[in-house]
Amino acid sequence: MSEFLFLGIDGGGTKCRARLRDAEGNLLGEGAGGPSNIRLDPDLVWTSILTACREALSQAGLQENDLGRVRAGMGAAGAGQRSAVARLLSRQHPFASFVIDTDAHTAWLGAFEGGDGAILIVGTGSCGYGVVDGQRRYVGGWGFEISDEGSGAAIGRDLLRRVIWAYDGRIPATPLSNAVLGDFSNDPEVLVDWVGKARPSDYARYAPLVLEHAHQRDPLGLELVRHAADEMAQIAMRLLDLGAPALCTFGGLAEPLRPWLPPPLQQLIVPPRADAIDGAVLLAKTSQSGGRNDCTGL
Amino acid sequence: MSEFLFLGIDGGGTKCRARLRDAEGNLLGEGAGGPSNIRLDPDLVWTSILTACREALSQAGLQENDLGRVRAGMGAAGAGQRSAVARLLSRQHPFASFVIDTDAHTAWLGAFEGGDGAILIVGTGSCGYGVVDGQRRYVGGWGFEISDEGSGAAIGRDLLRRVIWAYDGRIPATPLSNAVLGDFSNDPEVLVDWVGKARPSDYARYAPLVLEHAHQRDPLGLELVRHAADEMAQIAMRLLDLGAPALCTFGGLAEPLRPWLPPPLQQLIVPPRADAIDGAVLLAKTSQSGGRNDCTGL
Repeated sequence: MSEFLFLGIDGGGTKCRARLRDAEGNLLGEGAGGPSNIRLDPDLVWTSILTACREALSQAGLQENDLGRVRAGMGAAGAGQRSAVARLLSRQHPFASFVIDTDAHTAWLGAFEGGDGAILIVGTGSCGYGVVDGQRRYVGGWGFEISDEGSGAAIGRDLLRRVIWAYDGRIPATPLSNAVLGDFSNDPEVLVDWVGKARPSDYARYAPLVLEHAHQRDPLGLELVRHAADEMAQIAMRLLDLGAPALCTFGGLAEPLRPWLPPPLQQLIVPPRADAIDGAVLLAKTSQSGGRNDCTGL
Repeated sequence: MSEFLFLGIDGGGTKCRARLRDAEGNLLGEGAGGPSNIRLDPDLVWTSILTACREALSQAGLQENDLGRVRAGMGAAGAGQRSAVARLLSRQHPFASFVIDTDAHTAWLGAFEGGDGAILIVGTGSCGYGVVDGQRRYVGGWGFEISDEGSGAAIGRDLLRRVIWAYDGRIPATPLSNAVLGDFSNDPEVLVDWVGKARPSDYARYAPLVLEHAHQRDPLGLELVRHAADEMAQIAMRLLDLGAPALCTFGGLAEPLRPWLPPPLQQLIVPPRADAIDGAVLLAKTSQSGGRNDCTGL
């Protein structure tokens, strides 16, 4: 019973998911915990991780002292930020080993099982990531203000900009622009006040409405969705130019935007072989070191 | 000596300027005070206003008790915000009358001496404003996040977005993108950290560099300046479509962008007849009421 077990952890802003497999890849158990964005307080993040882990252990009929033979891998948003990783790794953990990498990296590991390929995440934000011949490349994903093209937040902000243009009379109003201005009592001051407090996730809530109007051939809806798809395509093309033979897409907007991509791109999108949690299992397995507090690839 | 005097006040974020004229329009004196953005503490704003006013009064050889025959007009950024105006007007003032309006309105009043016309302000932010047949129209100027097209802040943010694209390999690097990335130690993480703290005025500081590279035919510089001029033109065209016979431009970027506008637009740009402070004098003169704490046009 001294054989290693492998735990994959997916660390997100609202929850933490964990999956335990044995060396042969058999599923032993799964669990969930609280927020585990690694920019949060490290004690909170560790509590979330260990809650998810212990639930998976308990499902597997294992005990607390089995933690010592668990090799854990975690994919987490924000793990590209060295200071956040250092803060997390400043705490003791009970595992045989613990490695952490970006959520993009574990998504890629799962999707291509470590082979050449690229992923494109399009949700509230957007990010492209590929690995070719062991070389990692990020394309996009540098944040809402100057990056995250094609994302829900970008679509929402572009929408509100055009709603203002329509109010000013710079472009024709459409059913979509009228509907949104109506939400703000037809008063741009109310809209501007809302913008003053809006976060990317607030803007992103408009993406489904934009898609819905685009499907009803609203000119503004069509323009915004086409623009988002063009920007998503630009990121995808760069990843392919870097040598990625195929693409996997993730995030709530990837599927809705897919039919708007140029057909030669659509044809290169393949289903992921495994999810990001199994990508994290693979991260745990392939990490060379068995020591504590390792942090590879950063 | 019971004849009214007319005081024009230009209220800005860093200083307050005042000019005193008699009923015939003769210049009696000028003065300056501290910050008078009306979103600031009203007691501070009134101190700035009265400092500027007393300096002008003293230049004119007048006394404190002459304040009672001064009719004052003020143009101020933020005066479109009713709550800020109400806060300012909650304090007593020593004038025979006091009226306040937006800085765009007093700029227009000065530029066209109350006649039909439109103004376009392009600096850190941007804003279009016109009055035709007594009807006021704002075009643009709804803030950095979803408006202020063609402004210095918009140029700077677009620049940084493209610097990231060049870093990612999505577009070719140029001398301009290389120079800017070099300012951030060639590290996009450093750039992203900067963006996290940047205000519109920080982005706007890149506008002169973009213009300089555009004049050296840098492809990225050319694209950004052309785009800003197109957006400035879009605002100008809307104001002309609304019936404005001519345009006056203000702000640090108006002159540099002017040669990039379509010639038919350039031909409609005329010099202002008077400045915004004399626009505020006109505001004081033409306001119907002599009572206290009047706030016209809002």
